[in-house]
Amino acid sequence: MSQIPYKIYLTEEEMPKAWYNLRADMKNKPAPLLNPGTHEPMKPEELAGVFCEELVKQELDNTTPYFDIPEEILGFYKMYRPSPLVRAYCLEKKLGTPAKIYYKFEGNNTSGSHKLNSAIAQAYYAKKQGLKGVTTETGAGQWGTALSMACAYLGLDCKVYMVKVSYEQKPFRREVMRTYGASVTPSPSMETEVGKKILAEHPGTTGSLGCAISEAVEVATTTEGYRYVLGSVLSQVLLHQSIIGLETKAALDKYGIKPDMIIGCAGGGSNLGGLIAPFMGEKLRGEADYRIIAVEPASCPSLTRGKYAYDFCDTGMVCPLAKMYTLGCGFIPAPNHAGGLRYHGMSSVLSQLYDDGLMEATSVKQTDVFEAAETFARVEGILPAPESSHAIKVAIDKALKCKETGEEKTIVFGLTGTGYFDMVAYEKFHDGQMTDYIPTDEELQASFDKLPKMD
Amino acid sequence: MSQIPYKIYLTEEEMPKAWYNLRADMKNKPAPLLNPGTHEPMKPEELAGVFCEELVKQELDNTTPYFDIPEEILGFYKMYRPSPLVRAYCLEKKLGTPAKIYYKFEGNNTSGSHKLNSAIAQAYYAKKQGLKGVTTETGAGQWGTALSMACAYLGLDCKVYMVKVSYEQKPFRREVMRTYGASVTPSPSMETEVGKKILAEHPGTTGSLGCAISEAVEVATTTEGYRYVLGSVLSQVLLHQSIIGLETKAALDKYGIKPDMIIGCAGGGSNLGGLIAPFMGEKLRGEADYRIIAVEPASCPSLTRGKYAYDFCDTGMVCPLAKMYTLGCGFIPAPNHAGGLRYHGMSSVLSQLYDDGLMEATSVKQTDVFEAAETFARVEGILPAPESSHAIKVAIDKALKCKETGEEKTIVFGLTGTGYFDMVAYEKFHDGQMTDYIPTDEELQASFDKLPKMD
Repeated sequence: MSQIPYKIYLTEEEMPKAWYNLRADMKNKPAPLLNPGTHEPMKPEELAGVFCEELVKQELDNTTPYFDIPEEILGFYKMYRPSPLVRAYCLEKKLGTPAKIYYKFEGNNTSGSHKLNSAIAQAYYAKKQGLKGVTTETGAGQWGTALSMACAYLGLDCKVYMVKVSYEQKPFRREVMRTYGASVTPSPSMETEVGKKILAEHPGTTGSLGCAISEAVEVATTTEGYRYVLGSVLSQVLLHQSIIGLETKAALDKYGIKPDMIIGCAGGGSNLGGLIAPFMGEKLRGEADYRIIAVEPASCPSLTRGKYAYDFCDTGMVCPLAKMYTLGCGFIPAPNHAGGLRYHGMSSVLSQLYDDGLMEATSVKQTDVFEAAETFARVEGILPAPESSHAIKVAIDKALKCKETGEEKTIVFGLTGTGYFDMVAYEKFHDGQMTDYIPTDEELQASFDKLPKMD
Repeated sequence: MSQIPYKIYLTEEEMPKAWYNLRADMKNKPAPLLNPGTHEPMKPEELAGVFCEELVKQELDNTTPYFDIPEEILGFYKMYRPSPLVRAYCLEKKLGTPAKIYYKFEGNNTSGSHKLNSAIAQAYYAKKQGLKGVTTETGAGQWGTALSMACAYLGLDCKVYMVKVSYEQKPFRREVMRTYGASVTPSPSMETEVGKKILAEHPGTTGSLGCAISEAVEVATTTEGYRYVLGSVLSQVLLHQSIIGLETKAALDKYGIKPDMIIGCAGGGSNLGGLIAPFMGEKLRGEADYRIIAVEPASCPSLTRGKYAYDFCDTGMVCPLAKMYTLGCGFIPAPNHAGGLRYHGMSSVLSQLYDDGLMEATSVKQTDVFEAAETFARVEGILPAPESSHAIKVAIDKALKCKETGEEKTIVFGLTGTGYFDMVAYEKFHDGQMTDYIPTDEELQASFDKLPKMD
């Protein structure tokens, strides 16, 4: 075996040609989306008012293991994929660990994260269906940027509802989206009924992801030729993001490397679900075993402290109900929480896998995350996104554990993106003004008390 | 011949192992640096007070064609190199041109530009000489970021003097440097004699690159264990940046592609000098011919409207004199000029090549540059730096010319970096507030009148 290169790239021929649908191998399927009025499973025709037809099929399909990636999407992927699988030689040396650390780096595209993988897929199916445009929400801005890029490429209109606090604090993210031709509206806005209602009830609100979702869905369902698209949580998104894991696995297989543990940050679950897909598939089929670890912020701990229950996907309670680990759809992380990973719930697929004991979860504190981010940046060169740094923190912890025990574990983690638009948070960290906040049990209980009552 | 991939990557084995020194093949060597007091050529021992010893050797060596890249630097390069050579299939399609367009993308590293190639080399030699740290200046911030990263990697102290207007307008760039442990001081500052003098004469000044250079040099020459490093203009920098051109040529050769023209943006000349090096070498040796085109901003047109004369490299007039195309060391581009490419002079090497008719030069207007940048971003995905977009603009013009004539020219241009920290400029462009400014002949003449009088 030749020396493992710093970066393992796949050739165009070696790149995956189909997405992998993890649900096909799950014995316990994720619970279905429910109609919020009837509590009956959502029918394809009900979902088709919100989502593109092809995406509805993907959303509801729990049995087909592989979906061919359309040629046009493969073409777009070639612009920025394969993403490199990097051997973290410098980090290993810095830590003095016998562990072997690899990270799959998804930040080498202008959107700065893995979100582009699903954005192009969703935009493609919208275009194919003959739609005029799509609507969406964005928080930290990575998803909105990714969707803007995909829509610009395909010539599709793109309306982004951006959480007001981010709109104001991240004008540069907004400008990137405008560069790609998207319209960007701070949410809540007076453009929608739900926005007006939220503003009437909470006049000073700086918005939330759940609230922006409600606005984007309303516009999509009331505007001719538009549909709504979402960057995480949904099963279709995990399907598209499986490209991350498939490439990772192909790159590891190329050098005969078998990971012991796979670590990813988890907000709505799109990155983690994509990264682990083929590995979890082997685990489900009994072909291999891996430790799979979800890392979430202590300030928004849906897996580690949430309830596994049916809940609304949005604050406005206009979306279907999903069974997931949730903090309650009214939960909003503390204002000191930086970056993304602020969604109240977790992908139904990952929630089920976690409930079945097939995946671990851990939460980490914000200041520890930024410390790990800085350590990583200084030796590996890449300035990581706060989100991705949650995975870095736990990968470092595990590698240091190996140092204690002398074990030569192979650790793979997902480095979902870059932190170029998060320098305000880094500044706070440098100036010692970053703080941690962990919700109390009472706060969480108050939020759980508002979960929808099911029969 | 198989289909040309979107991105041509070199394997670790195919990567260049030595830098190419273009000067070795020049019949007319670049004019030597002169002592500003005596007007005699600078002696190695004089330069050694400012620069590291090994770098002095590289600076003065006009005959050795290749310098082996030290193992440690090759190791660092592996973290972000090879950079991809991208076939701009989408841009070609958008333009409807028969031309084949390639770009060498240097933005896939956290510093966001090619500057890292020389930063690691200069930091390495400083470390090897047993120094404590280095000082430098930065304008738009790319060089300062690159040097901070290199110093963090090697455990070297890094003091950056940042042009005050950039320090205030680009707090995020400053934070990236701090993340990598650099100290960043707005220039002019009260920390240096030259800074105090400039502030006394121009109390409200927002600084200039030439002024920040003066401060950084003063600190390097008066602080034990420090030397000064510079990100462009110098011949040693062009030597290190030859990695860009060597990789480009290796990637093209791999697929039997011979470019007709090579286009690069030019400020101090580091990117252009590096990109064209091996191609210009063939041209100088009579082995091949290429059109080589330098693109500069109309607001800072050193090649197209400057004088070929000896001038100071800095505003404070403490640095050696260099013979170069210059607008005069007191020239400062109009405040509406965005991004870099604002240095008053041009690399002595490129100046000589231009004077010998081996290279063309053209200047472009700022608003046209941003229009080209947006076109490029929407189809190719990458959000380009304003600097790099000068090359995009001319590459597009040449490709459209091919559309008129039907010629299938092969165009290669350098995409030096990303524009993530230039969104203020993009915002101005989107809002129609970006303007052009072209200095008048009278303004330039007033600046030329202050050029040092030579015997």
